[in-house]
Amino acid sequence: MWSKIKRLLIGRPLKSNEAHNQKLNKLKALAVLSSDALSSVAYGPEQILIVLIAVGSSALWYSLPISLGVLVLLAALVLSYRQIIFAYPQGGGAYMVAKENLGANFGLTAGGALLVDYILTVAVSVSAGTDAITSAFPALHTHNVLVAVIIVVMITLLNLRGLTDSATLLSYPVYFFVLMMFLVIGAGIFGAATGQVAPVHPHTAIGTPVMGVGLFLLLRAFSSGCSALTGVEAMSNAVPSFKDPAPENAAKTLLMMGAILAVLLSGMVFLSYWYGIHPISSQTVLSQLGETLFGRNAFYYLLQISTALILVLAANTGYSAFPLLAFNMARDKYMPRPFTVKGDRLGYSNGILTLGALSILLIIIFRGKTENLIPLYAVGVFIPFSLSQTGMIVHWLRQRPKGWMGKLVTNLIGAIICYMILMIFFLTKFEQVWPVIIFVPLVVVMFHKIHQHYLQVAEQLRIDLSVPLRSVNTTDNVIIVPVAGITKVVEQSLTYARSLSDNVVAVYVGNSPEAIEKMEKEWAEWNTGIRLVTLHSLYRSIVGPLDKFINTIKWKADKTGATVTVVFPQFYTKKWWHSLLHNQSGLLIKAALLKHQNIVIATVPYHFKK
Amino acid sequence: MWSKIKRLLIGRPLKSNEAHNQKLNKLKALAVLSSDALSSVAYGPEQILIVLIAVGSSALWYSLPISLGVLVLLAALVLSYRQIIFAYPQGGGAYMVAKENLGANFGLTAGGALLVDYILTVAVSVSAGTDAITSAFPALHTHNVLVAVIIVVMITLLNLRGLTDSATLLSYPVYFFVLMMFLVIGAGIFGAATGQVAPVHPHTAIGTPVMGVGLFLLLRAFSSGCSALTGVEAMSNAVPSFKDPAPENAAKTLLMMGAILAVLLSGMVFLSYWYGIHPISSQTVLSQLGETLFGRNAFYYLLQISTALILVLAANTGYSAFPLLAFNMARDKYMPRPFTVKGDRLGYSNGILTLGALSILLIIIFRGKTENLIPLYAVGVFIPFSLSQTGMIVHWLRQRPKGWMGKLVTNLIGAIICYMILMIFFLTKFEQVWPVIIFVPLVVVMFHKIHQHYLQVAEQLRIDLSVPLRSVNTTDNVIIVPVAGITKVVEQSLTYARSLSDNVVAVYVGNSPEAIEKMEKEWAEWNTGIRLVTLHSLYRSIVGPLDKFINTIKWKADKTGATVTVVFPQFYTKKWWHSLLHNQSGLLIKAALLKHQNIVIATVPYHFKK
Repeated sequence: MWSKIKRLLIGRPLKSNEAHNQKLNKLKALAVLSSDALSSVAYGPEQILIVLIAVGSSALWYSLPISLGVLVLLAALVLSYRQIIFAYPQGGGAYMVAKENLGANFGLTAGGALLVDYILTVAVSVSAGTDAITSAFPALHTHNVLVAVIIVVMITLLNLRGLTDSATLLSYPVYFFVLMMFLVIGAGIFGAATGQVAPVHPHTAIGTPVMGVGLFLLLRAFSSGCSALTGVEAMSNAVPSFKDPAPENAAKTLLMMGAILAVLLSGMVFLSYWYGIHPISSQTVLSQLGETLFGRNAFYYLLQISTALILVLAANTGYSAFPLLAFNMARDKYMPRPFTVKGDRLGYSNGILTLGALSILLIIIFRGKTENLIPLYAVGVFIPFSLSQTGMIVHWLRQRPKGWMGKLVTNLIGAIICYMILMIFFLTKFEQVWPVIIFVPLVVVMFHKIHQHYLQVAEQLRIDLSVPLRSVNTTDNVIIVPVAGITKVVEQSLTYARSLSDNVVAVYVGNSPEAIEKMEKEWAEWNTGIRLVTLHSLYRSIVGPLDKFINTIKWKADKTGATVTVVFPQFYTKKWWHSLLHNQSGLLIKAALLKHQNIVIATVPYHFKK
Repeated sequence: MWSKIKRLLIGRPLKSNEAHNQKLNKLKALAVLSSDALSSVAYGPEQILIVLIAVGSSALWYSLPISLGVLVLLAALVLSYRQIIFAYPQGGGAYMVAKENLGANFGLTAGGALLVDYILTVAVSVSAGTDAITSAFPALHTHNVLVAVIIVVMITLLNLRGLTDSATLLSYPVYFFVLMMFLVIGAGIFGAATGQVAPVHPHTAIGTPVMGVGLFLLLRAFSSGCSALTGVEAMSNAVPSFKDPAPENAAKTLLMMGAILAVLLSGMVFLSYWYGIHPISSQTVLSQLGETLFGRNAFYYLLQISTALILVLAANTGYSAFPLLAFNMARDKYMPRPFTVKGDRLGYSNGILTLGALSILLIIIFRGKTENLIPLYAVGVFIPFSLSQTGMIVHWLRQRPKGWMGKLVTNLIGAIICYMILMIFFLTKFEQVWPVIIFVPLVVVMFHKIHQHYLQVAEQLRIDLSVPLRSVNTTDNVIIVPVAGITKVVEQSLTYARSLSDNVVAVYVGNSPEAIEKMEKEWAEWNTGIRLVTLHSLYRSIVGPLDKFINTIKWKADKTGATVTVVFPQFYTKKWWHSLLHNQSGLLIKAALLKHQNIVIATVPYHFKK
């Protein structure tokens, strides 16, 4: 039945040779890989405004110069990632670039930060998408957490089905969102130019001095705005998915994405300023802007739907990246091996499920209020940003190809900006980003522990192919059959035991001298030719006396190199609830014996016919 | 570690011969066995008042004639149970009496009703005890459920430790409660006689006609009052625990309990009437009475504490009865066998744990408002009451000892009253007691299903001791060793397999032709002399191909009567978290094969050294 539900939810299993890597053209790649970056437009500018409104609405004009700073940073990042694309055409994730150029520890730091970050991506994007939905339908506002969790479950199921094949389908919402945003910005500028649309609040003129605005506040607002740059790295990780010539196409797509992002960001910031929109908790800035420009008509709802869709798609970026990174790290033995296993639909299903479960956990813990996670998320992005730029600097210094000086300078500028932003984050938002200082070293230590264990296991399991198998004399083997009475099950176990060895011992553990005497009498009557050993259990435990008895047998067997096998029956009942009617203590006894002793447990199934 | 926590909570395991049945003298028996009945005083009268207040405070005087009716019923019950004591000195629970005289179905009805009732006893008593506590400490009022659950957990732990030995300790709270009640009643009568204590509300004179009081209402109030009679049966179940001459002592103790109960009940009802106490939701009637007579001083708090203690002790009655009844029914194969197993401390721990878990479930479902369960609980008590009285009538008719006519008449009167009360319950409180009509037949059907299964199992497992064991030719046995690579673990499994049979086959399931080719090459190099079969898995599943392969082997083996054994390694890691790093798919594969096939699975443990 479970199998049927699984088929219904994620589809039939695929054969291994059904895997086919669709190569992406620029238009599809832009859609699939930029959803994370473009979706930041829906909450990035708002983050700047939230910082400024704390001083007063007159401070909101500072959002304009601050976003100018963000645009400069965007340009620097685009240029330096362009170089990574050409240097690592096999897909240079921060983990790979840092590991190769800076060593394992930096690679693990980048990898750990990214893994945590993808979880945050999903939680933050889906929560933001949910906010977009509940801004439009206030009745749902109290069910934010539930809506968000349902969305995560749906995305997880879609990814288990294998969403990578449906790039075409995914590209519609992205272009839909870009189109809607262009319409909003166009209408906004038209309204501003003609003065036909009344602002929500009057805006203060640019340059108005405001009490209480200092460098610290501005840096804080700037670092908030930087959260709009998350996702810029996506292209550089996915170069192999592009059509040939892959690096050229990826680089062009990256530039295209940078340009669109720049236009949307500046448009959003300008219009929010012009129409005097204040960030409030019950409605997003983008929703307010849409309402001001169009009223609550069909167009407004389309805008909200497109926002919700792009935010949900941004979560999907996490789903394409996390399982792949986990696979790479598991292949290098830094993550548990199950992350290398392909599921029924050829996706790395363990990675997909882990990501889904952890982001649901985050959403529930933070009750859907993931805004507070955005700074953490942004820091988590800038750590691998910084490390991959630094890695590239080392790369150029080592390789020194033609024109390496210029390339080095580009990455150097990128690196310097990234480190500055990291510093600004830690200076201005320490109370929100401090967990990074604890979590990242913690996961790096964990990666090392895992690595060490796998190396130790490999060492222990390695054998010399030239050494022949050890030979054991069959007649030395001892087979122990614990018996609870004289039944068909015991008969079956004894028959099996005797077919393996002539050295079979039946053991009965009794709670009272009377029970033991009765058993011995019946055994004598049965006349199987097999020796019965009876043990008296003072504490009604079966494991205890059995364990001691096996120890004695084992001690003798070890001298000849023989093995000791304990035969246990296991009942299989006709109806599931019947199994509740049988003491399942056999399972516990087997587990305890296997753990304590170096013996073999043979499980003989007994299938009830009714 | 789990073992240490267990030791701390319930103490060291006891040897089977450490069991000793303390015989109870009358004073201790009265304390241990009457806590359920006496505690009813704390809520029984209140139940009558709750029904009457619905008409108006002027109707409260009717509580006096109603409780007179309850006293008559009490006398009848005490007399007829006295006879059961003498007729069943081995402890005649309703299950036993009904089963022996009326047949299995009536016995199961009584047993089922009692089992459900003991769960209700615990839930209702503990909730009432919690109410007594929170009446005194209103700050706790919002945490009722939590407090009640903690109390149930504590009682469960005490019983797992083995509370039966601490009868002396248990008798203090009972006598403490009786003493406090006598003081309250004494002070109340003194206050009433001298007129020194002002009533809460003026009371209406006895006999005042009240609009809206009809027969239906009075019967309803009467049936509510009958809930004060629950627990009267306890003595008759526990006759063997008394000192010799057991029946005489038990009968005397029963009379003593009846007398005390009668005094406390009539005192409570009279004083509640005299001081014009109205039942309210935030404070119990007993608490109001105490406050009226003494004010909120130390004495008042002592009264509340004694009430809470006796109610909690009443729950303990359920803990002594439920596991014993479950044991008796499990011995008769009507309940799952685990209920016959004695735990570390020689109690029937499965029964104790089941009772605790189910009553916690009830408390949580009803959010601690178990007042609504009281009628259900009372009906559940009167079903076994009626059946045991009826059983006794049959008993006398069959045995006809000297003076049987008088005895028959006594039980006949008891039976008639019990059936009348059952009828009143169903007529006046149908909306609260209807679940009984569904649950009781349901559990009786369940008992029969369980019984049938155990009989079928016994039938299937029975063997003829005169038939010798079937002999199997050792060389026909096939041992299959699934291998995932060439490692120490595989070496160990193969060595073991070869020590059992010369007919060993290694099986490799590969996901790709390349993997299979590589494996075959390495295998040839190893030169073990064991045949390797390689299977190509299209869907990356190991169970599928393995299952098919085993089927083929099995088909051949079945012809010669040989067994097929599949050898699986199981890893035991040094640190618990290391086990997370290994695919535990072996467990799933083993479970699937055992379920599908009639083969033996041999588990070879591999203990990592680091």
